[in-house]
Amino acid sequence: MTEEFNLYLEKMNAINMALNIMYFDRATGAPKGGVKSSSKFYGILSAESFGMSVSDEMAGFLKQLEKENQPGEIDKAVLRICRKDYESFRKIPVEEMREYKELEAGAQAIWEKAKEASDYSYFAPALEKLIEFKIRFADYRRGAKDRYDVYLSDYEEGMDQETLDAFFAQLKKTIVPLVKEIGKSGRRIDESFLSRPVPIQRQREISSLLIKRLGFDLNRGVLRESVHPFTCDIGQNDVRITTNYHENAFLSSFYSVLHEVGHALYEQNKIEEIADTILDKGASTGIHESQSRFYENIVGRSLEFWESIYDDAIAILGEDFKDVSAKALFEVSNIVKPSFIRIEADELTYSLHVMVRYEIEKLIMSGNYSINELPKEWNRKMEEYLGITPRNDAEGILQDVHWSGGSFGYFPSYAIGNAYSAQIFSCMKKDIPFYKKIRQGDIASIQNWLSEKIHRHGCLKTPEELIMNIAGEKLNASHYAKYLEDKFSAIYF
Amino acid sequence: MTEEFNLYLEKMNAINMALNIMYFDRATGAPKGGVKSSSKFYGILSAESFGMSVSDEMAGFLKQLEKENQPGEIDKAVLRICRKDYESFRKIPVEEMREYKELEAGAQAIWEKAKEASDYSYFAPALEKLIEFKIRFADYRRGAKDRYDVYLSDYEEGMDQETLDAFFAQLKKTIVPLVKEIGKSGRRIDESFLSRPVPIQRQREISSLLIKRLGFDLNRGVLRESVHPFTCDIGQNDVRITTNYHENAFLSSFYSVLHEVGHALYEQNKIEEIADTILDKGASTGIHESQSRFYENIVGRSLEFWESIYDDAIAILGEDFKDVSAKALFEVSNIVKPSFIRIEADELTYSLHVMVRYEIEKLIMSGNYSINELPKEWNRKMEEYLGITPRNDAEGILQDVHWSGGSFGYFPSYAIGNAYSAQIFSCMKKDIPFYKKIRQGDIASIQNWLSEKIHRHGCLKTPEELIMNIAGEKLNASHYAKYLEDKFSAIYF
Repeated sequence: MTEEFNLYLEKMNAINMALNIMYFDRATGAPKGGVKSSSKFYGILSAESFGMSVSDEMAGFLKQLEKENQPGEIDKAVLRICRKDYESFRKIPVEEMREYKELEAGAQAIWEKAKEASDYSYFAPALEKLIEFKIRFADYRRGAKDRYDVYLSDYEEGMDQETLDAFFAQLKKTIVPLVKEIGKSGRRIDESFLSRPVPIQRQREISSLLIKRLGFDLNRGVLRESVHPFTCDIGQNDVRITTNYHENAFLSSFYSVLHEVGHALYEQNKIEEIADTILDKGASTGIHESQSRFYENIVGRSLEFWESIYDDAIAILGEDFKDVSAKALFEVSNIVKPSFIRIEADELTYSLHVMVRYEIEKLIMSGNYSINELPKEWNRKMEEYLGITPRNDAEGILQDVHWSGGSFGYFPSYAIGNAYSAQIFSCMKKDIPFYKKIRQGDIASIQNWLSEKIHRHGCLKTPEELIMNIAGEKLNASHYAKYLEDKFSAIYF
Repeated sequence: MTEEFNLYLEKMNAINMALNIMYFDRATGAPKGGVKSSSKFYGILSAESFGMSVSDEMAGFLKQLEKENQPGEIDKAVLRICRKDYESFRKIPVEEMREYKELEAGAQAIWEKAKEASDYSYFAPALEKLIEFKIRFADYRRGAKDRYDVYLSDYEEGMDQETLDAFFAQLKKTIVPLVKEIGKSGRRIDESFLSRPVPIQRQREISSLLIKRLGFDLNRGVLRESVHPFTCDIGQNDVRITTNYHENAFLSSFYSVLHEVGHALYEQNKIEEIADTILDKGASTGIHESQSRFYENIVGRSLEFWESIYDDAIAILGEDFKDVSAKALFEVSNIVKPSFIRIEADELTYSLHVMVRYEIEKLIMSGNYSINELPKEWNRKMEEYLGITPRNDAEGILQDVHWSGGSFGYFPSYAIGNAYSAQIFSCMKKDIPFYKKIRQGDIASIQNWLSEKIHRHGCLKTPEELIMNIAGEKLNASHYAKYLEDKFSAIYF
């Protein structure tokens, strides 16, 4: 590498870091009246960073340095990623990206307001503009590729609709009959205590307990509150997660914290050598979601985890919960019941939520959609996959933040992440007495295994390299299907 | 103006706005472990913005546009300010500025830790480096000027030590004998209730009450908490203030909120036409402090303000304060007593605190100082001006955040602000029945007057133009001297 290229990358990183802080700031309490101004500036800085990634100067650096055959793993990865971004995005005009980014930065506040009012029509104009940009950008970029495949591949390299169609078909084959059988089984799990009020302050204490148990380092991270829980990676030394508290649904924040901590542990445990470089991030969103879903579900929705945390949790929850056992908490966290909100869905029906979004995104990216028909389309798909129809926009099409951030093609990552997590889990169990460790509260052993195999590498390795190294095979949905079958059969039959 | 220059300025603004958000973020809860990384990036972006303000490109724009004789007031002001910055700073190498800004960004966390431990030696190495940079930069810039005058003039155009020496001499002539007389007067004001505990949550409610009363617009602003209260102007649509709560000193946050709200009202009430431009700020720090000190002292430490807010305040403070009258609260807010902490000092001895810092900054900028002797120097000056000696570094030299941010030459702004505030007040009283309005809770009339004369103009007018328009004369300390004499004679004699 040359000193000049390093300075160039440092400047790009500095802008990206500032953008991340601005994003976090906007989502965690920046005054509403400032959104228009900050969106404009966000657009300008995004375009600046984007422009640097596709500039002639970048092309020059790459051409020169690639010839020199970089010896180190880190240098190689830097060039690989810069080259990939350059090739992927260079056909988008910088000025259009600026306009788009300004729109995107302002759209979240519009979505928030629309969701609050449960009024899709308030968000629709912004959404339509976002989609127009996304379609146009895909067309600049796609060559012979299908539009939606362009975005799928942004989140998971090489992913396309052909693969995903088969992937979802396999999951559907397991999940749909299993959900039906469970419905017919007659087994009813007590959920009466789920809506007992837990004051927000106590829920905050529960969050602290989880953070401590899982080893999220608060010297290099924070937990805040926002409308939609998320993780913001400002670098491995500054990882921020958020949650959202509901007095009458304490498990909502419980599981969103476990989920985001899963992301955060990935970010915090990368090797120091890549701190604050463009490699200071995960390998893909699929791998990232595998870590968050791993902690949320495989760890957090196990009987052993509830047993290990029971005494401390009940001490915080107070008298009202003294009659609730660890087993009851475990079972209630695994009630299978088609429901409206994805992030609160049970593990089994969760992937059906993802399928709804996948199908709708396919429709959107085809261009043959009507912006005003999307809520109906959403509800139709919910009926088809989950057998229920949302009663309003807030519990339907408006529930997720992603589209307001232009994240089309992201949702499948959740299902891919689930599949990876089960695949990883089946390998981990060969090395570690998993449930024993969980019952002992020894998360460190599990975390060390994940660090070694995944976290430490940041994006030095591709998702395929990671999973090949761990499992000796590519992404394979059958592990997840089996995991679900085993787990829910044990609970329900 | 040309489109090209506008784009250039917009990019500069975008970076500056991002820097402001990063600063605010760092002071209000960013994880400590991330400070090193974020400081580096802060340095890079600061250098980028700085580089743009002194670039050959900027010189080219200015040369071209100044020739064209811009017709509008706004365009004229933009050119005036860009030209001033260009001429002031162009001799500082961008690379040194980057290094300096990185140092500055990290220094606040060091200062915070040193203050917490009351250990000056922990902060001294960073302070020494900051001073070295400041001296070097002043030498690049000063030509025939004295070093310290360079910085004084940064904060208050044209200000120098000759003017300030005379200014402080005049204040001293009034204040020192008045403080002595008060000490001898034998009049003792009851302050026993001052340290009664007020839970932080109640103090937060008091803050909300003050914010509502004064009309700080929370749609375009926020209140948060930080070690040292401050105002952060991200533009007129996003103005942020902070405070710091102490359970056994409820008036501390009370007056820091009034102070910062005074700054915030200035920022929020500028004309819309300058929103998000380089003119979206106040005329000078002296004028700015005149507004904060006006609300803190002239409004907030008046009997009439306490009367107007009494019922609501007591309702929040609760049973423990039922025996305390509005008059008692007024008097306790005006106890004259030499004390260690500037931001909690009474109105009369306050300027003496500023003099201590002024003298020490003079010494520092002379270059003939010893870094390890500064605490002793501080304590000597405190003894000289206030007759008391700090018992440790936290209540001595470490109390203020300013030096950790490289703000040498800022402190005199507080005294200048006091003087302006009294000068402005004497004019306002001719137009408005001031104390009657205050008693009625009609802050709006006062705020409208200030908006019309000062706030709306942002930095379109120079401090001198503003004060000449209002008072028909330049900065004149005698109004402040008279105000103090009148006020404290009435209370004490």
